[in-house]
Amino acid sequence: MSQQADIQPGVPEPPPLLLRGVVEAALREDLGWGDVTSESLIPADLAAEAVMVARGDGVVAGLPVAREAFHAVDPRLDVELLARDGETVGAGRPLLRVAGRARAILSAERVALNFVQRLSGIATLTARYVAAVAGTGARIVDTRKTTPGLRALEKYAVRCGGGHNHRFHLGDALLLKDNHRMALAAAGVSLIEAVRRARAALPHTVTIEIELDSLDQLEETLAAEPDTILLDNMPPETMAEAVRRIGGRARTEASGGITLETVRRAAEAGVDLISVGALTHSAPAFDVALDFNV
Amino acid sequence: MSQQADIQPGVPEPPPLLLRGVVEAALREDLGWGDVTSESLIPADLAAEAVMVARGDGVVAGLPVAREAFHAVDPRLDVELLARDGETVGAGRPLLRVAGRARAILSAERVALNFVQRLSGIATLTARYVAAVAGTGARIVDTRKTTPGLRALEKYAVRCGGGHNHRFHLGDALLLKDNHRMALAAAGVSLIEAVRRARAALPHTVTIEIELDSLDQLEETLAAEPDTILLDNMPPETMAEAVRRIGGRARTEASGGITLETVRRAAEAGVDLISVGALTHSAPAFDVALDFNV
Amino acid sequence: MSQQADIQPGVPEPPPLLLRGVVEAALREDLGWGDVTSESLIPADLAAEAVMVARGDGVVAGLPVAREAFHAVDPRLDVELLARDGETVGAGRPLLRVAGRARAILSAERVALNFVQRLSGIATLTARYVAAVAGTGARIVDTRKTTPGLRALEKYAVRCGGGHNHRFHLGDALLLKDNHRMALAAAGVSLIEAVRRARAALPHTVTIEIELDSLDQLEETLAAEPDTILLDNMPPETMAEAVRRIGGRARTEASGGITLETVRRAAEAGVDLISVGALTHSAPAFDVALDFNV
Amino acid sequence: MSQQADIQPGVPEPPPLLLRGVVEAALREDLGWGDVTSESLIPADLAAEAVMVARGDGVVAGLPVAREAFHAVDPRLDVELLARDGETVGAGRPLLRVAGRARAILSAERVALNFVQRLSGIATLTARYVAAVAGTGARIVDTRKTTPGLRALEKYAVRCGGGHNHRFHLGDALLLKDNHRMALAAAGVSLIEAVRRARAALPHTVTIEIELDSLDQLEETLAAEPDTILLDNMPPETMAEAVRRIGGRARTEASGGITLETVRRAAEAGVDLISVGALTHSAPAFDVALDFNV
Amino acid sequence: MSQQADIQPGVPEPPPLLLRGVVEAALREDLGWGDVTSESLIPADLAAEAVMVARGDGVVAGLPVAREAFHAVDPRLDVELLARDGETVGAGRPLLRVAGRARAILSAERVALNFVQRLSGIATLTARYVAAVAGTGARIVDTRKTTPGLRALEKYAVRCGGGHNHRFHLGDALLLKDNHRMALAAAGVSLIEAVRRARAALPHTVTIEIELDSLDQLEETLAAEPDTILLDNMPPETMAEAVRRIGGRARTEASGGITLETVRRAAEAGVDLISVGALTHSAPAFDVALDFNV
Amino acid sequence: MSQQADIQPGVPEPPPLLLRGVVEAALREDLGWGDVTSESLIPADLAAEAVMVARGDGVVAGLPVAREAFHAVDPRLDVELLARDGETVGAGRPLLRVAGRARAILSAERVALNFVQRLSGIATLTARYVAAVAGTGARIVDTRKTTPGLRALEKYAVRCGGGHNHRFHLGDALLLKDNHRMALAAAGVSLIEAVRRARAALPHTVTIEIELDSLDQLEETLAAEPDTILLDNMPPETMAEAVRRIGGRARTEASGGITLETVRRAAEAGVDLISVGALTHSAPAFDVALDFNV
Repeated sequence: MSQQADIQPGVPEPPPLLLRGVVEAALREDLGWGDVTSESLIPADLAAEAVMVARGDGVVAGLPVAREAFHAVDPRLDVELLARDGETVGAGRPLLRVAGRARAILSAERVALNFVQRLSGIATLTARYVAAVAGTGARIVDTRKTTPGLRALEKYAVRCGGGHNHRFHLGDALLLKDNHRMALAAAGVSLIEAVRRARAALPHTVTIEIELDSLDQLEETLAAEPDTILLDNMPPETMAEAVRRIGGRARTEASGGITLETVRRAAEAGVDLISVGALTHSAPAFDVALDFNV
Repeated sequence: MSQQADIQPGVPEPPPLLLRGVVEAALREDLGWGDVTSESLIPADLAAEAVMVARGDGVVAGLPVAREAFHAVDPRLDVELLARDGETVGAGRPLLRVAGRARAILSAERVALNFVQRLSGIATLTARYVAAVAGTGARIVDTRKTTPGLRALEKYAVRCGGGHNHRFHLGDALLLKDNHRMALAAAGVSLIEAVRRARAALPHTVTIEIELDSLDQLEETLAAEPDTILLDNMPPETMAEAVRRIGGRARTEASGGITLETVRRAAEAGVDLISVGALTHSAPAFDVALDFNV
Repeated sequence: MSQQADIQPGVPEPPPLLLRGVVEAALREDLGWGDVTSESLIPADLAAEAVMVARGDGVVAGLPVAREAFHAVDPRLDVELLARDGETVGAGRPLLRVAGRARAILSAERVALNFVQRLSGIATLTARYVAAVAGTGARIVDTRKTTPGLRALEKYAVRCGGGHNHRFHLGDALLLKDNHRMALAAAGVSLIEAVRRARAALPHTVTIEIELDSLDQLEETLAAEPDTILLDNMPPETMAEAVRRIGGRARTEASGGITLETVRRAAEAGVDLISVGALTHSAPAFDVALDFNV
Repeated sequence: MSQQADIQPGVPEPPPLLLRGVVEAALREDLGWGDVTSESLIPADLAAEAVMVARGDGVVAGLPVAREAFHAVDPRLDVELLARDGETVGAGRPLLRVAGRARAILSAERVALNFVQRLSGIATLTARYVAAVAGTGARIVDTRKTTPGLRALEKYAVRCGGGHNHRFHLGDALLLKDNHRMALAAAGVSLIEAVRRARAALPHTVTIEIELDSLDQLEETLAAEPDTILLDNMPPETMAEAVRRIGGRARTEASGGITLETVRRAAEAGVDLISVGALTHSAPAFDVALDFNV
Repeated sequence: MSQQADIQPGVPEPPPLLLRGVVEAALREDLGWGDVTSESLIPADLAAEAVMVARGDGVVAGLPVAREAFHAVDPRLDVELLARDGETVGAGRPLLRVAGRARAILSAERVALNFVQRLSGIATLTARYVAAVAGTGARIVDTRKTTPGLRALEKYAVRCGGGHNHRFHLGDALLLKDNHRMALAAAGVSLIEAVRRARAALPHTVTIEIELDSLDQLEETLAAEPDTILLDNMPPETMAEAVRRIGGRARTEASGGITLETVRRAAEAGVDLISVGALTHSAPAFDVALDFNV
Repeated sequence: MSQQADIQPGVPEPPPLLLRGVVEAALREDLGWGDVTSESLIPADLAAEAVMVARGDGVVAGLPVAREAFHAVDPRLDVELLARDGETVGAGRPLLRVAGRARAILSAERVALNFVQRLSGIATLTARYVAAVAGTGARIVDTRKTTPGLRALEKYAVRCGGGHNHRFHLGDALLLKDNHRMALAAAGVSLIEAVRRARAALPHTVTIEIELDSLDQLEETLAAEPDTILLDNMPPETMAEAVRRIGGRARTEASGGITLETVRRAAEAGVDLISVGALTHSAPAFDVALDFNV
């Protein structure tokens, strides 16, 4: 983990209403008509204390979600966060302490862990990408390739890992890709005219980004005056050439199959942003466990 | 991919009501107040055809979910599945064809792909585990370490990959783990007595499984007459010893950090079931794309 | 009421999230835009105390649901349970005390009573069946003939009455009935082969039960090795014959029009389980009232 | 069954949006992640036809709800109603025919039957009360003692049985009971003044009803000019005396523990309305089954 | 503002469950994945105090809704109402004080203000109509021309302004308009017969109102014995004639394009009720602001 | 109405899923347990045709929402739009034709009209503001002062009227107002530093706008390099001075109590955007009616 990742602990938590909705849905899914194991075996009044512990090295994310899960099962559980989301932690590090009715802790355990393992997995992978481009000035950004239903939380996890967010949904930025370019051609509308019309119609708060598949499209794209140019699937040298020719007239974003191995070269090509779908669609879970003291 | 995976195509689809609920939530999350890109750039009446194509080798899952996503955006889209969930496919294989209003296809694209990439990723990883134990008679089973909100779909993907499901939630099987064992000890109740009471109270359809951390616990565990014994985090040789001593008096399940490298040895220890959390919590996305013909 | 019913008071309550969802829906249904009677007639700050009282003999169930109803209308109401769900009570027995704003108590009254009268009705009828088979070792179990939307609560009430639950929904046990047998015949698949395939596909936690309409089907059914055999609509002597021939190779369940008059004979035929749809579909309400002290 | 019940077939169906909401909730509850029995045993393309048949005599209600259940599981099922809600039927009478995929019919079967058995049970019991007061001019009306979540459907079933509805919820009529009377006394407000203030505040569409526990309260109650006077728990002769003294200045309603045995005497006392909680809280299920032809 | 408006402060608040549902939906709409402004700029632990202040003269409504909004964002905010709904206030009047985390106050601000500005706008316009008819005995009533989703709150605001409510939805009063009259004619059913049948079928709590477009329809309408007669779009003198001929045999309601200029003449024609759609569909917002002390 | 307004007919409709959610909620609110008037009076099979007609001059918006309302009540209703949203219409202009079951049309009527009257009211008022600034190049934009629950639809109506949208919610643009300025001062952070940090943290798609209350703040504000500067509550001459000094280094927006009388002067001061809360919070309803031919 880089030190860079360690400066994210101040990432503001998602709004409580958002947390509550996601957590209650997860608990309804996992609890069904009751936790037959705990209800059958654990005395109703048995008290317990448990500590959530990291089982590997990484960047933690999702502890407030876990707290919400424990409180949704039993508001009287005493929950204390022992680390802050965005913090780099090592194996064995205690992350959260919960105390109260043993049955309630056991019933909420899996949902709490499922959120933390997934969100910390994303934060940890993001932090590795961020570390890989350290010093280049390039931002690591996410995509819309998120898990259905968890977008806001997964994008929060990206921020916890030191990454940045790209647009949240189809309504908050215009991103003109090759398919749109083909459709414009089919409809006989020039790129420049299409973007002019879009700007005339869209809110002034909506920025415009245009994808570039080859340098041949560069002049026309620049003439459309986008806020950002997306350099898709380009070799680093082509990318560098594109960045040079754009010359600051638009922000530049690299995308397309970028891996931990290739990300630094993309960053050194001079782009401002590097979007990585894998942050959210392929991050392995971060290993966490809940250790009990009955 | 093994041939074994290829015999799963008959996996029955999840109930339509369940699909609809998950898909509509995902679309609300991704569409917001509208797809400003398509609405700004694509003529309302432009028709298009697109084909979802595999970009790698694996087992596909989620095509009916993608179809539901296209239809939820526009019921008049014509959608044809070109592969069956559970089928082993290679890069370049067309999976689904959709035709109709270009705007509608573009607006549904990401959600449709997000489901297929995630579920196929799970099916593909599952199939690799299944192939790794081919011929041993051991089942690969999932866990409750699923993505909050997507459990039924993710467990469906495991079935598509040739794996089997473990319990769906805390209400449909009793699984006595070390924490429960500790709680029983704290409460002064013997394992045998506790299981006897649980069986007396639970529905006859609920099976009982007990976790075993060391062979020392074996006799007491067998005396409790569980349906299944979970051998947690044991070296293969200990596992084999446990299986031999259990001697068919209970089903046996191996769990705990089992990887593609170690799974065959676990299977050869003679267990009936091997549960792998990674199937759902750490499967990388399967690469799929939507290619357009405007 | 039998003493047997009286040993159920320890039935664990349904999960709070489940209670809250059902109770809030019921209050929205009953309150509309406000309780015009209380709001018109009762001073906003008038305090009151009320006691829920049994008006007949039976087994009480639903008191935690009533508490939830009072708290959902006004979290500051002071609610004390004076009996435990599963307890046998007589007419006049105080069950719950609530104190606070008179308007809030009056607005929640009907919903609180509706839950208790229905669930206690089910518990009471269940307890009568349980008493009728006392000493035989047979379990009284419920069915899926429950009120839409209230299944988890109604099955909880059956437990409160000393009964046991059968499967909760179509996803948690396989129950092969005559219609499925007919469909198999139409498809040319033998029962044995069909069950073999099902077991190969289903989670190991899912048990298999096969309905038997006549003794002619017994050998084939046993050959399929079900966990449970359902003896449907058989005269007691045929049932006894079936139980004898099954000889412990499967659990046995009796079903089909069993009444309080006939249940003991079924139990004496030696079956393990007797399922009674009437527990949930035809239990008369238990009479309870809320007595006020303004 | 009286002929009177038979004139109800024209009862308009509940709004489709209302049906859909209730039916989808019921199916989610019963289907879970899938119908493991049908999916394991029934070929996906096997067609079947089934007929819902009455197993006893009574008044049918809920057939459009059953149709909605079949269509919610599979919109391509062909459903035909063979009887109209509100019709008096005898054992063996076919009520509904459904044809299409066998799996879909089997998956929807229980939910469809659960609605019809409950609503027909209510309609049938209502019709018996209606028949018992035939010729007296008294209406049989329901109460708010309904099953949480099903009020609109249960009140519809009462109409199907020839009964009438009382208020739907606390917002659509003022009903001053003894508890409110006590509260008024505690607050030092006279009944007449309280009702005057209520009328001054409430919509002109809201009618006012006042409960009378003894004839001593009659003059004061009449002076308050209610639309309806509720005679609670009175012997028939007292009731008749009350009706006579009211002399048409208000509608009269009898309530309080009225049974099929006592209802005619109440009606003959001359009241306009007789409210019976048992219609909805204690109606035994009407026996219906689904017979298959695979 | 008339003094009459000032006697409404005792209007009972809408049920908390209703408030919570509406407020949470509004906050989800306005907050999205977070308040990027406050989260970026305001220290997490900065405390603030703010006062909601009237910026004009009018009748306030919605303060409990605003309190709910602040508490839904952060239950620890300290909120004090400084005025009562229904109170006449002047510009500069403090209405509500909130103290606590600055971020939370800023995040809830707009939703809180949106409710108060809209509901107070309705209350204020209502109070002007009520003042315009002062002394005539006519009630100002609302219509179903409300904002979708906010009916209960908007009708509450009408009450706060001294007005009265008409029916809440299509299920709680029969209102026979010209379209229904035309349909009856097309079906060959007389008005009198139609109303007779309706009364025979409807709950006794449902009142009947008939619209009258010309005096020619008066005798037939009276013969149908409605509870209320709606005089639609009549000049004041015709209205007065209608009222005289009705002679107390039914309540009378004036409707149809009545404005602040014409409302007094309608009232002086002697009608009991004057319904004004503009109260809810065209009330300009009442100006309120939140002034901060950081 | 200006010709300018007439060029909006191409405004893309809101996503169907969004329409459906809002419309079904509105119908549930208005229909309750049924339309007692139509069900009592209109034969079930009576067919009718009705035309929605403008009763005044304005810009229409909401016709697809009305179509959705009719189809939600009865999918078999035949609905034809006779005008396009965004079109300028005169009194008497037919807007929509619906044919089918009379009961269904009558039950959906009010909800359909409520959406059209409100959204057309907003579009019409917007068009008047747009016309008032014709030729100046200034955009009329909306605010977040919308009706809770209807934001997406109301902002759509603004677009139909020729206006533009400002941010949709707190998550999609940073808008630094005086309260945030005060909070920064209290926290001892300079504006420039605060904006620098915000830009470093926020997605590149999020634009930054800073409010300016007096020219004294101009230099510091410009130094923070916002995308847009909000000139709040300034006299036209001050505004013009601000625009001149900003000199194109940021977009400019005027806000604060701008009316139809003052808007042109603001536009002539040279600002790019003029935000008007009244568009959504104080637009009077547009008058529309549904004329029936039974």
